Amino acid sequence: MTLLIKNGRIITADQDYLADILVEGETITQIDTLIEPRNEIEADEIIDASGKYVFPGFIDPHVHIYLPFMGTYAKDTYDSGSRAALLGGTTTLIEMCCPSRDEDLVEAYELWKSKAVGISACDFSFHMGISHFDEDTPEQINRIVDDGITSLKVFLAYKGALGVTDDELYQTCKVAKELNLVVTAHCENADLVAQLQNELVAAGKLGPEFHEPSRPVTVEASGVHHFCTFLEMTGASGYIVHTSCRDAVEAAMPFRARGVDVQLETVIPYLVMDSSYAERPDFEGAKYVMSPPIRDVSHQRYLWDAIASGTISTVATDHAPFDFAGQKEMGRPPESDFTKIPNGIPSVQHRPVLLYSYGVATGRIDLHRFVELVSTAAAKQFGMFPRKGTIQIGGDADLVVWDPTYKGTITDDTRAMDTDYEAFEGFEITGRADVVTCRGQVSVRDGIFVGELGHGQLVPRNRGG
Amino acid sequence: MTLLIKNGRIITADQDYLADILVEGETITQIDTLIEPRNEIEADEIIDASGKYVFPGFIDPHVHIYLPFMGTYAKDTYDSGSRAALLGGTTTLIEMCCPSRDEDLVEAYELWKSKAVGISACDFSFHMGISHFDEDTPEQINRIVDDGITSLKVFLAYKGALGVTDDELYQTCKVAKELNLVVTAHCENADLVAQLQNELVAAGKLGPEFHEPSRPVTVEASGVHHFCTFLEMTGASGYIVHTSCRDAVEAAMPFRARGVDVQLETVIPYLVMDSSYAERPDFEGAKYVMSPPIRDVSHQRYLWDAIASGTISTVATDHAPFDFAGQKEMGRPPESDFTKIPNGIPSVQHRPVLLYSYGVATGRIDLHRFVELVSTAAAKQFGMFPRKGTIQIGGDADLVVWDPTYKGTITDDTRAMDTDYEAFEGFEITGRADVVTCRGQVSVRDGIFVGELGHGQLVPRNRGG
Amino acid sequence: MTLLIKNGRIITADQDYLADILVEGETITQIDTLIEPRNEIEADEIIDASGKYVFPGFIDPHVHIYLPFMGTYAKDTYDSGSRAALLGGTTTLIEMCCPSRDEDLVEAYELWKSKAVGISACDFSFHMGISHFDEDTPEQINRIVDDGITSLKVFLAYKGALGVTDDELYQTCKVAKELNLVVTAHCENADLVAQLQNELVAAGKLGPEFHEPSRPVTVEASGVHHFCTFLEMTGASGYIVHTSCRDAVEAAMPFRARGVDVQLETVIPYLVMDSSYAERPDFEGAKYVMSPPIRDVSHQRYLWDAIASGTISTVATDHAPFDFAGQKEMGRPPESDFTKIPNGIPSVQHRPVLLYSYGVATGRIDLHRFVELVSTAAAKQFGMFPRKGTIQIGGDADLVVWDPTYKGTITDDTRAMDTDYEAFEGFEITGRADVVTCRGQVSVRDGIFVGELGHGQLVPRNRGG
Amino acid sequence: MTLLIKNGRIITADQDYLADILVEGETITQIDTLIEPRNEIEADEIIDASGKYVFPGFIDPHVHIYLPFMGTYAKDTYDSGSRAALLGGTTTLIEMCCPSRDEDLVEAYELWKSKAVGISACDFSFHMGISHFDEDTPEQINRIVDDGITSLKVFLAYKGALGVTDDELYQTCKVAKELNLVVTAHCENADLVAQLQNELVAAGKLGPEFHEPSRPVTVEASGVHHFCTFLEMTGASGYIVHTSCRDAVEAAMPFRARGVDVQLETVIPYLVMDSSYAERPDFEGAKYVMSPPIRDVSHQRYLWDAIASGTISTVATDHAPFDFAGQKEMGRPPESDFTKIPNGIPSVQHRPVLLYSYGVATGRIDLHRFVELVSTAAAKQFGMFPRKGTIQIGGDADLVVWDPTYKGTITDDTRAMDTDYEAFEGFEITGRADVVTCRGQVSVRDGIFVGELGHGQLVPRNRGG
Repeated sequence: MTLLIKNGRIITADQDYLADILVEGETITQIDTLIEPRNEIEADEIIDASGKYVFPGFIDPHVHIYLPFMGTYAKDTYDSGSRAALLGGTTTLIEMCCPSRDEDLVEAYELWKSKAVGISACDFSFHMGISHFDEDTPEQINRIVDDGITSLKVFLAYKGALGVTDDELYQTCKVAKELNLVVTAHCENADLVAQLQNELVAAGKLGPEFHEPSRPVTVEASGVHHFCTFLEMTGASGYIVHTSCRDAVEAAMPFRARGVDVQLETVIPYLVMDSSYAERPDFEGAKYVMSPPIRDVSHQRYLWDAIASGTISTVATDHAPFDFAGQKEMGRPPESDFTKIPNGIPSVQHRPVLLYSYGVATGRIDLHRFVELVSTAAAKQFGMFPRKGTIQIGGDADLVVWDPTYKGTITDDTRAMDTDYEAFEGFEITGRADVVTCRGQVSVRDGIFVGELGHGQLVPRNRGG
Repeated sequence: MTLLIKNGRIITADQDYLADILVEGETITQIDTLIEPRNEIEADEIIDASGKYVFPGFIDPHVHIYLPFMGTYAKDTYDSGSRAALLGGTTTLIEMCCPSRDEDLVEAYELWKSKAVGISACDFSFHMGISHFDEDTPEQINRIVDDGITSLKVFLAYKGALGVTDDELYQTCKVAKELNLVVTAHCENADLVAQLQNELVAAGKLGPEFHEPSRPVTVEASGVHHFCTFLEMTGASGYIVHTSCRDAVEAAMPFRARGVDVQLETVIPYLVMDSSYAERPDFEGAKYVMSPPIRDVSHQRYLWDAIASGTISTVATDHAPFDFAGQKEMGRPPESDFTKIPNGIPSVQHRPVLLYSYGVATGRIDLHRFVELVSTAAAKQFGMFPRKGTIQIGGDADLVVWDPTYKGTITDDTRAMDTDYEAFEGFEITGRADVVTCRGQVSVRDGIFVGELGHGQLVPRNRGG
Repeated sequence: MTLLIKNGRIITADQDYLADILVEGETITQIDTLIEPRNEIEADEIIDASGKYVFPGFIDPHVHIYLPFMGTYAKDTYDSGSRAALLGGTTTLIEMCCPSRDEDLVEAYELWKSKAVGISACDFSFHMGISHFDEDTPEQINRIVDDGITSLKVFLAYKGALGVTDDELYQTCKVAKELNLVVTAHCENADLVAQLQNELVAAGKLGPEFHEPSRPVTVEASGVHHFCTFLEMTGASGYIVHTSCRDAVEAAMPFRARGVDVQLETVIPYLVMDSSYAERPDFEGAKYVMSPPIRDVSHQRYLWDAIASGTISTVATDHAPFDFAGQKEMGRPPESDFTKIPNGIPSVQHRPVLLYSYGVATGRIDLHRFVELVSTAAAKQFGMFPRKGTIQIGGDADLVVWDPTYKGTITDDTRAMDTDYEAFEGFEITGRADVVTCRGQVSVRDGIFVGELGHGQLVPRNRGG
Repeated sequence: MTLLIKNGRIITADQDYLADILVEGETITQIDTLIEPRNEIEADEIIDASGKYVFPGFIDPHVHIYLPFMGTYAKDTYDSGSRAALLGGTTTLIEMCCPSRDEDLVEAYELWKSKAVGISACDFSFHMGISHFDEDTPEQINRIVDDGITSLKVFLAYKGALGVTDDELYQTCKVAKELNLVVTAHCENADLVAQLQNELVAAGKLGPEFHEPSRPVTVEASGVHHFCTFLEMTGASGYIVHTSCRDAVEAAMPFRARGVDVQLETVIPYLVMDSSYAERPDFEGAKYVMSPPIRDVSHQRYLWDAIASGTISTVATDHAPFDFAGQKEMGRPPESDFTKIPNGIPSVQHRPVLLYSYGVATGRIDLHRFVELVSTAAAKQFGMFPRKGTIQIGGDADLVVWDPTYKGTITDDTRAMDTDYEAFEGFEITGRADVVTCRGQVSVRDGIFVGELGHGQLVPRNRGG
């Protein structure tokens, strides 16, 4: 199977030129100004990318697909989730494998993996959640690392469920240092959140608008400071997921200045929404409940500056989809309260187009920074570069042909994620992934999914980013 | 009983004048330029303070007397401890009441109090240690507060023994906020210390010089950041004991700038010693093992600036006396290691003269700042002002007649503390407490203890500092 | 002449007790619980202070009386100005002596002094403005210092008029270091202000509401950073006048942390007004034009925290009174613009009562901190302590008998300052200076001026604060 | 003319793959896994890059070639300078065009340009120095911008010679904002340096070891803070050249966090030398006198962290070559002093290999970060990307074939720079530029210069970086 993409403007983090791209099988085999199909490479398909950008396939380094959480399960499977990802141009997902404290790590890993293998239409990997740490844990981690999983995940929040103790955090960081793995972390102080939730609920403050006050910026900054301290003490490399606010970023800066290797991620809802969304009437606000919460607009502005300047290195989603009916409604007052609302916003589909529309099209970031934020930086950080995250001969043929002239609006009709609502409904967008290939297979054509379930593979990742 | 102190130069935090002071009973009843004993006030004793300063009695807001710790007991009783305090000019001690996690709070308080009442020659109070928190705790705290104890103490270090969980820390701060109490805190992350100790010992690093690396500045700064977060979330007022380093101070500053009420204490060993003391050969370094550890000299310089500028408000001791023989030696390698060395330096006697000699006499701080640091600020912070901490009519007659011309050297011969060594041996000193009165009773005369055991009283303290 | 103040509650920065105060001549000669007039001290006047506080006379360390500025002259003389000061309880003024660049320093000093001597009803001193620096300057400064003037003033703003070059700033700091003087500084970058003014005016932004945008917080913070750098390089002690915003305070903090001796002042308008005042219609906003400008309310909150915590040490006024008619109106659009509005707010009269009402009565600061902010800290900083700034035997009998129960409203009827408007009109107040004495002379009785013009004296000040 | 580079491992900021590169004329026309010379593209030269890296040509964004300075002239011409650059792999220089205050800008630009055109063997551009600003300046800048010069240079140091006033700085930033140019700045406060120099010399401190104390880190940080303030006030984009210390970096950070677009450069001497070099005996230290000075080793460590984390974006040289005999010696005591030593270190030749040897080979930075620091970031920052700074079809054929296995030592024999000493003599190196092409012309082969004087061209640069 050969594929020829002609006349596109190739844009990577550090390139910008017009050329044809020849894909043979799963791999880019030739990039040239004029590739003519010859006998021996009779192209099976020729795509005309004239007037369009060709980006490396996007990588979402922070999603949840299989997610037992707060007494229910997130809605997407790899069937719906990978289709939604590809429609947006995302060709690789890194899912959080989140065992509960009493689950065996290797069994959990196998369970999570089984949900993806043979089903996913796009490539995938996992951050291995460490929810407890005992004498067997190092050996279990070693086995999972052997499968190409080179990053761990710890929760400072969700104590008792997913969260680790300080002892466990230290041990996890030590093992990560020894094995040259990256530790990713959800940084909120669990006890403070629990206390503040109790107080708000006791005061009759039950609606989704009280979710943000139950997890204020100080609580997130405290988590960041705590995690960075453990990185400094162990020498491990860290990656802080879903940084939502100035306070959290600033808590990490002095550690970086002292040489601690810690990278920051933000997620797309923080960049295009603010805390007023959770205040929408008729419990509508529940749709925008995630943790850390979406902050007031001053933090949004700060985050745009931080991604433009490189202070924050990646924009992910924390995709965690729950229905409004039956799931988000578990927290509807007066019978219930905001602490029962499953946390998460379905977003894996729209991350690239939102960042493009509100970042590139508005002039906040340029095309190269865009590619870094949605693809290259994650590929480097998590050991998939240069196989993924760029466009080069020999690299995986994960390509996005992007039409920069497209104008549209996100509606529930365009939603491929398996929820009963579209969180970004009504957002005006610029640009679209016209064609998306995943390891050479055309998975999206004219913005329509034409891929194949089960085509996706586990991407073995290198250690040390 | 009347006492007349004549011709002294009265120095308080905000006064400097020559006057006579008349004491009737326990109280200052008159301050005037020329007080002549008349019939009705036939002075029992007249002290000539010509050429001398008269300071308000010094207050040490951080001492241990009764201290079961690390499998042994600190050496001083209120007999030796209060005598040593008075010899240095300290007329009021605030002792840490440190129950273990499973001790009943009220019983512990009564036990600690029983060690002082009827024995102590100087006045005293307690910070009530909260080592666990359950449903009975608020009522118990209320009962202890009724006895005039208006500050609590939490340990972030010493987990499992004295330390609290984050839940307990939050509850403690909430109660403090409601009752208008001050929360004092030992800020070091317990788990990090434990891990680092294990690693050092496992690496054969056993001597007292490895105590400091087992509790690095980052670990202390982490504790400070953590505690300040809890203060911010609860609105409680806090006081961080024994701040040893720049990193810890700087961790607190942004919280203060946001309006969090947190005060900082340092202790005298940090101002006159440095980390090289713990490196002394023949296990001599063990004498200088305390927590947080004494830092390198750059931190010492920083602390002097911080007390001069008002960033740090008090200079205490953390007096915790252990013998070298039999106690400090419990941690002597190769059989044992530094983690077994009882923490603490006997220092209650010498704090004022060391601060005077190395602060006032060197020009780093002036006389008024000296008085604030060793007396007034603690009186205000802990609800004893203006009864104590200043010299005014109606105030307690806690007075120090100080000879600024005295020159001497601290030696083991001058030691009144009940340890088998003098930590400050060989330190040149300037100035001396010639006469010390405690509520009107002359307790030191010509530098010799002439007080009375049992004269000391529990000082009921006001809430809200 | 003897005066007996009976039954007052004496409040200083570190005292709080009930006692009588006997004043003989200009000096406090006795403080006692029961002073009975005897034959030899037949009191000329007895004031009953029952139920009232007795404070040390307040000190305003930053006023302008004689002020040629922006083509006009400030309105008050020492006649009106000292009366207004005393009515508020202020017994000592430190005026800025502000020669223009081409004025001889000694002549300017004599001119400024001549405006006060024999006229002022309250005591006074000067900060000597250094508006240029040549080879004769050190000798001239020496002569002025010999007259008891121990602080200098530099303007980083008002370039060409009052401002100094960097060379001159350096030389000034060096001389200050050698002579142990304090350098006070107005910190705004002159060139930036000029440029921003030009741009705003060119854009037709002429009204007083554009004064603040012409001197944004960054410009003030830049001035602070610049001045602190010069302090650090020369070792001089500095005092930053009228700090208006968080950014300015934070610019100074790292220097302090490195041991630079720099103190901060704020002024009362910043604590009780915000930038909306300058937006009042009908050019009313011009009444609130001062430099640095009054900031938005977030800075006001920050400043209250900063004075409570001790980060800022003094609250002054920068009293600079101009009429609305004829003076402030010089900048009325459309013929003119905000850059022509004489800068300043008449405020010397109301500083104490505003700080009391909005600080003490609201619980933001306690009585002792109040006294420090309005009296003691300035006395210490500028070499008048303990003669002034406290209440002690032998000290100047500058006393304020304060009625804490008084409730009222500031109106134009209560104004003693010689302007045609009252900037604080309508402010509700709590407390009042019932009786004020200046070196023993009763100058205010029942809130009415009964003092004597010409009673005031130049206070010779010590070097080194 | 066609050139074929075969079998190299292509390394850019975001690529890493094995491929052949075909160069036709000045341009890369094909990159493929197996390019066979065919009839129509009979390669004139084939270079075997097996086992070697192929990097994009390096860019040095901060050099001096023609430099009248301190009464003498820097030694290199474009003849020697461009040869030295190419030998190290640097294919593009951006020279500082530094007119004195009274020189006409356009004439100066033409003069500087005339020194390069027809002479330089490598490509070049200029930062246009703005040493004064009057009404004609904007028009002059426009004319120079029309020639493809899209960045300006200001000196805060060297007042009276090259330095600008604050007014001029503001005007320059405004014009830069309007025209979308980058303002590069040398940030040291000129007056402070002058004063400190005077004091040191007056104190008999004459040797080169006193150069660093005459320009302490505080002075540099002050310049950075000042410049960033002007960027913030005008909205211009800035680039701070030769950042030497932690203090300078930290001064810029809060501005960045507020969204100010300011990038930082460091230079190679700061990364491999420290202040002890200037202390070498027999006036040897003079060889290491540059401004800002080389700092103590703690700053060196900080800078390595800062370039690894991306806080600093480029590593340049500030190449400014002066002979030891006759030039550096102009400042030899006792007749003269360090202020007369021409500032600068000959370094244009060795920057890449030193960064590779002490950065890549030691593991401090990876290959991609190396390319960003020495090439890509400068190309993007200064409007030459993607023509330069990467390896792509259609891009300039500026290529470096790098032998990572080479081991050697820098000696005076290897020096191509026209000075009488080699500053880096004795430095062990790893790696070497075996082959270097400049727009298709092989200019270095086997480490020997084979290029052609006059081949170099002025690179027209885009605005807006």
